[in-house]
Amino acid sequence: MITSITNAQVKRVIQLNKKSKVRREDHCFVAEGLKLFRETPEKLRKNVFVSETFLNEHRSDDTLKGISFETVSDAVFERMCDTKTPQGILTVAVMPEYTREQLLGGSGRASLVMILEDLQDPGNLGTILRTAEGAGVTGIFMSSRTADVFQPKVIRSTMGSIYRVPFRREDDLADVCSWLKEKRVRIFAAHLKGKNTYRGEDYTGGTAFLIGNEGNGLSDVLSAKADVLIRIPMEGKVESLNAAVASALLMYAAHDQR
Amino acid sequence: MITSITNAQVKRVIQLNKKSKVRREDHCFVAEGLKLFRETPEKLRKNVFVSETFLNEHRSDDTLKGISFETVSDAVFERMCDTKTPQGILTVAVMPEYTREQLLGGSGRASLVMILEDLQDPGNLGTILRTAEGAGVTGIFMSSRTADVFQPKVIRSTMGSIYRVPFRREDDLADVCSWLKEKRVRIFAAHLKGKNTYRGEDYTGGTAFLIGNEGNGLSDVLSAKADVLIRIPMEGKVESLNAAVASALLMYAAHDQR
Repeated sequence: MITSITNAQVKRVIQLNKKSKVRREDHCFVAEGLKLFRETPEKLRKNVFVSETFLNEHRSDDTLKGISFETVSDAVFERMCDTKTPQGILTVAVMPEYTREQLLGGSGRASLVMILEDLQDPGNLGTILRTAEGAGVTGIFMSSRTADVFQPKVIRSTMGSIYRVPFRREDDLADVCSWLKEKRVRIFAAHLKGKNTYRGEDYTGGTAFLIGNEGNGLSDVLSAKADVLIRIPMEGKVESLNAAVASALLMYAAHDQR
Repeated sequence: MITSITNAQVKRVIQLNKKSKVRREDHCFVAEGLKLFRETPEKLRKNVFVSETFLNEHRSDDTLKGISFETVSDAVFERMCDTKTPQGILTVAVMPEYTREQLLGGSGRASLVMILEDLQDPGNLGTILRTAEGAGVTGIFMSSRTADVFQPKVIRSTMGSIYRVPFRREDDLADVCSWLKEKRVRIFAAHLKGKNTYRGEDYTGGTAFLIGNEGNGLSDVLSAKADVLIRIPMEGKVESLNAAVASALLMYAAHDQR
């Protein structure tokens, strides 16, 4: 059992939770809790750490059957976690990787793609991944200035969808848009200048939605790449909707037609 | 100019930001930033505090014209704020109060009501208020165990809708449901056991949506109060959607029909 905070493995997990740079170096991230442990695909599972208490509680069930893991004293385990009330198990997982083609969902299915420009709020990003899986999104492109998808808060908010929705970080989203057009995917942008309301369009073919940064909206460069600017109607004095809410309305508008 | 952290007014603002109990005692809350200052109705504006820098920057424009305010040194102002990068202005506002009738939106309009049971995440709660205004919701009932709507994070997430969407905390939501039924409002609950999908119902008459707690969903007591259990279809392995996302889909499904 590991009982020291200075243990090299413990130190690395703490760093993986805290630092985007360390995650990139190791090509790994930390998934806390029982649900995410269960949902981590075997081929992405690198290490599993459990607290002493967790191990005692699960000795007689099959939670850890066939799994190689390290046991850590409760006090040290708590330090390894980003959450305030850790569940006693954490998984170090390898970052999944996808090709652009994989984000189109294969040949049998019309692509449904999200393109996120510089989203900053980790809760929004995680919620978009979770909703995307629910709405049958085939893939998510995100700009390299989008919040780190592998940080603990995003991972938690995805509720496991991090393993099931293909995504890619891209340096040049305008180039992604050009590529999507070659693939006959129509690009819609939620935009204040949109004339058509989002419910009046046809999303049964290959469809992509552009979503802009929370504070500044979509850049002019990317807006210009859209085939159609659409608008979500808003009553009262509301100027815009939360990015995860706007994304959800668009993704489900497409889902409802399919 | 106030330059001391021990000033009684400064201390009270800090307490108002931190403690739900103090907010209840004073019947006031803190709204930070320029946008919320501008959106606070005059009759709810109790005190305004600005930082020295803010005052200097806005001496020659009409931001503070006709407003009585207190100036605070930058260092003390920063301590009064919940945000990391304060904008230099904060408003102490009186809590708005509404009758049950007011949440129905008046006679000219079909009621569109949200009923929130024990929502815990402040970001979700604020986002629901913001989306509610956009979707034309007439009022929001929330259980007394819902997160405090007057805490700083909720106030910020509402983006000003806190002043424009009528809401009430209620000890007994089952009683609220009975009252709504007397008012001929139909009650829909998003529920895993729902047979009908949410897009297949008629929301043109008086409509209320029940939304349950993030972890546990809707209680059996409240589910039993629903006229119809509805379901948001979900692909993949998604078990539920984020509460603010589910609320948004339902509110906009009603809005789209109106």
